[in-house]
Amino acid sequence: MTEHSPAACLIIIGNEILSGRTQDKNMAFIAQELNSVGVRLSHARVIPDVEAIIVENVNQCRAAYDYVFTTGGIGPTHDDITSASIAKALGRACVRHPEAEKILRAHYGERVNDMRLRMAEMPEGASLIPNPISAAPGFYIENVYVLAGVPGIMQAMIAHAKHMLRPGKPVLSKTFTLLLPEGELAKRLGEIQSQHPQVEIGSYPFIRDAKLGTSLVLRCADEGKLAQAAQDLSAYLSTFPIPFSTE
Amino acid sequence: MTEHSPAACLIIIGNEILSGRTQDKNMAFIAQELNSVGVRLSHARVIPDVEAIIVENVNQCRAAYDYVFTTGGIGPTHDDITSASIAKALGRACVRHPEAEKILRAHYGERVNDMRLRMAEMPEGASLIPNPISAAPGFYIENVYVLAGVPGIMQAMIAHAKHMLRPGKPVLSKTFTLLLPEGELAKRLGEIQSQHPQVEIGSYPFIRDAKLGTSLVLRCADEGKLAQAAQDLSAYLSTFPIPFSTE
Repeated sequence: MTEHSPAACLIIIGNEILSGRTQDKNMAFIAQELNSVGVRLSHARVIPDVEAIIVENVNQCRAAYDYVFTTGGIGPTHDDITSASIAKALGRACVRHPEAEKILRAHYGERVNDMRLRMAEMPEGASLIPNPISAAPGFYIENVYVLAGVPGIMQAMIAHAKHMLRPGKPVLSKTFTLLLPEGELAKRLGEIQSQHPQVEIGSYPFIRDAKLGTSLVLRCADEGKLAQAAQDLSAYLSTFPIPFSTE
Repeated sequence: MTEHSPAACLIIIGNEILSGRTQDKNMAFIAQELNSVGVRLSHARVIPDVEAIIVENVNQCRAAYDYVFTTGGIGPTHDDITSASIAKALGRACVRHPEAEKILRAHYGERVNDMRLRMAEMPEGASLIPNPISAAPGFYIENVYVLAGVPGIMQAMIAHAKHMLRPGKPVLSKTFTLLLPEGELAKRLGEIQSQHPQVEIGSYPFIRDAKLGTSLVLRCADEGKLAQAAQDLSAYLSTFPIPFSTE
C-alpha cells in the first residue's frame, strides 16, 4: 500500500522490557516520527542484553529492512553492550570516537571516568547522533541507527536522526469511532476494503464503560484515495441510528 | 541465569502498533503472568497483519522457543487473519471448531452472522482458551497460544492459559532506586556483577524533575543468591550521602 516508502525495523534491546518491569514507551513514538518523513516501521523486536543475540538479530534485520533502529544499552554500566555488539555484527572494531570523547569530557569535566568514557566507544566509522539532554551521543553506521533507551533522550535523538533518512511519502490516516461491536459492521466493511484495495482498513475493537466499540482506521499515502474510501465508509456508518466520531 | 525455565516468544500481530496509533499494553502484562509460572519471555516481535509475514515469523519462533504467544487478529473483520495464517504455518486445515461455534451461537443468539462465525475457525486440532469477556475464544495448538489483542480480553485469556504451560522457577527481583547518575556507580556495579554471576544486575537510568537517577534491578530465580547480591549492593549504596529506596 506504501510499497515504495523505505521500511524500517526497530530492535528494542532490554531485559527490563522482556521482564515486564518496564512498559516500552518508545515504539509508538518512533513509528510516528518515522512516518512523518515517509519511512514505515515494518517490524519490531524486543531482545535481551546478550551479545550473541544482539549480533544475530541486528544482522537478520539490517539485511531485511532499509533501516534498523535500536534503543537501549548505550550507557556506562556493565550491562550496556549494544555498541560493542553492533560493532561485532558489522565486523568492525569498536573504537573510541574522538568527537564523542570530546563531548563527554566537556560535559563531565572532572567527573569523567573510565566507565563514562565507554560511551564514546562505537563501531569504527560511525557518525554521531547528538544528545542535547545528557551529552552521550547515539550513532549511525551503514543502515543501523543506535539510540538511547530513556524516552526523553531517544526522542531528541530520533528528531535529529529522521532527517538523515531517504524520505518517502507519509501515510495519512482517518479514524471513525463508534459504539457498535465490529461484528455488526464486518460484512460491509470487507466490501469497502475490496472496493478500495490501496487503502488499508483496520478494525480495532475496544471496551468503554463495559460496552464494545470499534475504531475503523483508514490508511493510505494517497490523499485522494483515502478521501474516497472515507466517503464510502461515512455513508455506510450514517445508516446506523447511533453517532460516530472522526479524527 | 534461569536456563532451565521454559522460554517464551510473543508475537504481537497488529498494523495499529507498527503505525504508532496504538501503544502496546500487553507485553509487560504477559511477561509478568508468564514469570508467575516460571516461564521466561525471551523474545518479542511486532509484525503486520499480512499472511506471509505471520506464517514466516510463527514458524521461525515456534522452532526457536518452547512457547509462542500471539496477540491480535482473531476478531470477525476482514483484517482478522491470524487464525487462518497460523493454520497455514502449521500445515493444518483451518476449520470451524464445533465447541467454539456453539459458544458463539449461544452468546450472539439471533445476532450471529457469517462474519462472527469466522471467529470459530481455527487450525484443525486446536483446543480452546476461554474468553469470559466477549465469548469468542482464543486457542492453542502444538506450542502456539493465540490470544485476543484487546487488553481486557487478553488478560482473561492468559490468566487461564498460563496454567497449561510446563512450569519453571519464577525469577525473583529486588530493585534499588536512587537519584545518582549510573555513571557514578558503574565501576563498583560491574564488580558486584562479576562477584554474583548468577544474578542479573540491570542498571536503568531515568530522568525525574530534570535530574538523572538510576534503578538497579537484581534478578535471579534463587532467593539466597539474590539476597547475597542485594546485601553487597546495599552496603555499597550506603556509602553515598543520599538515600536509596528498595522494592
